[in-house]
Amino acid sequence: MSELDHNHSMRLYLLPQTFKGEPEIEIRGKDFNYLTRALRLKIGQIIMGRDREGGLWDLQMVRIGKDSCIVSTSRTEKATERTDALPQARPLKPIILYQCLPKGRKMDDIIKKATEAGVSAVVLVRSRNCIANIDGKESSRLERYDAVVTEAIQQSGSMVPTKVEGVIDIKDIPEDLERRANGVPTLGLVLHQSAIRNQNSDLLSSTMGFDGYVAIVVGPEGGLEEDECQSLLDRGFKAILLKTNILRCETASIYAIGAVQTILESSCQ
Amino acid sequence: MSELDHNHSMRLYLLPQTFKGEPEIEIRGKDFNYLTRALRLKIGQIIMGRDREGGLWDLQMVRIGKDSCIVSTSRTEKATERTDALPQARPLKPIILYQCLPKGRKMDDIIKKATEAGVSAVVLVRSRNCIANIDGKESSRLERYDAVVTEAIQQSGSMVPTKVEGVIDIKDIPEDLERRANGVPTLGLVLHQSAIRNQNSDLLSSTMGFDGYVAIVVGPEGGLEEDECQSLLDRGFKAILLKTNILRCETASIYAIGAVQTILESSCQ
Repeated sequence: MSELDHNHSMRLYLLPQTFKGEPEIEIRGKDFNYLTRALRLKIGQIIMGRDREGGLWDLQMVRIGKDSCIVSTSRTEKATERTDALPQARPLKPIILYQCLPKGRKMDDIIKKATEAGVSAVVLVRSRNCIANIDGKESSRLERYDAVVTEAIQQSGSMVPTKVEGVIDIKDIPEDLERRANGVPTLGLVLHQSAIRNQNSDLLSSTMGFDGYVAIVVGPEGGLEEDECQSLLDRGFKAILLKTNILRCETASIYAIGAVQTILESSCQ
Repeated sequence: MSELDHNHSMRLYLLPQTFKGEPEIEIRGKDFNYLTRALRLKIGQIIMGRDREGGLWDLQMVRIGKDSCIVSTSRTEKATERTDALPQARPLKPIILYQCLPKGRKMDDIIKKATEAGVSAVVLVRSRNCIANIDGKESSRLERYDAVVTEAIQQSGSMVPTKVEGVIDIKDIPEDLERRANGVPTLGLVLHQSAIRNQNSDLLSSTMGFDGYVAIVVGPEGGLEEDECQSLLDRGFKAILLKTNILRCETASIYAIGAVQTILESSCQ
């Protein structure tokens, strides 16, 4: 279960790229707003910081000016909530979003919302009906998505270091999931738009009480082909027909994450 | 229960404003793409149409051209699925989203996703931490939101004629909900970001098996004030602390709708 322990929900400040361990740093702009307006951090209060290598820091508010503030930094080993006023840390069960490439900028919205919800990874997937093609542009695209993740982690104070990875082929999802779970039980869910002959599972009963890695596979605009879906079912994935209207893929992903995470984390299991 | 029966999930074509009951109409542009590309309607196939007064029509595909198509229209009284290939009609339980006014264009995204999911109404709410102020601009704003709803209904084929209404004050939510439910049982859920002394309810156990009108209250960027929340709790609403990170309001709304609708519509109750 040690893999699971890395997922926490906590107010967290992601230190700037330029931070090299200075004892005091000045913070401006968006980050200044985040600390003083969103978190309403007062002088003397301490918040957890994380540097770009994953190192943890206690950051204490020293001075608040009109458009910048100064925090002092000290290295720490343990991730604990430092400021009483902020929400409690809470472990989140790992969810992997396998998102078939949508058109245009939709992926930004999908990644932003998934990151806020503390999804462990968003894996970009190539499937037959994908119109988007980022072949040869993977690295610049992943760089852009990394910026989206950074901003979303700041805003949500997520302790889950969400990764955006891929592109992988849809047939490789089961192996990818097993590799990530590394022996921990897995539950694969494929969202689809129409009933697959007597193979539909109920999201609530499939998910309730499950403890392990949950994969959510969301198709592209044109949907998944029946053989793509069937091949995942043959590998033990469950077909989920959401009990709602036809959703666009950017709506389906966060809708399903909301449902799955609420059921997984429910105390009434 | 007759109120509940109006909610169906079905592929539906919302007829243009200009439609006055002509026996044949020519359809171009986005709507042409919707019928021929998204729904892949073939010649001879029939789809349900709804005019702007709520009247229902059988629409049969007569001719498909390069950038327009002709459908014949005939008035019908009963909303039934006409084309086998399209997903089954299914009633959806009524959900009302009470959304405190967020800044800028966020409301468009919230309304779009809520409409896709077949929410009965999105009610705009004024609360103390709302920065947005649309006083005097309500009617032009509601007009814009109406266009967002129309497009989302088309895309999702929702049979729920989602309404956007308001602005109402947060203290008036309980009366507004009772008026809509008109005697049908109601369940009010208030999303909040931090624990309210021993008054937190679990979303799953609160919602499972409930049959009636569910209200979801989502605060603005600055959150709800404790007294605003408490006043709703005093009126029988339940405080829900989502078991996830701090979500932006545009993420929280569709996340919660996904969770609530999945649980309400689950077959394993």
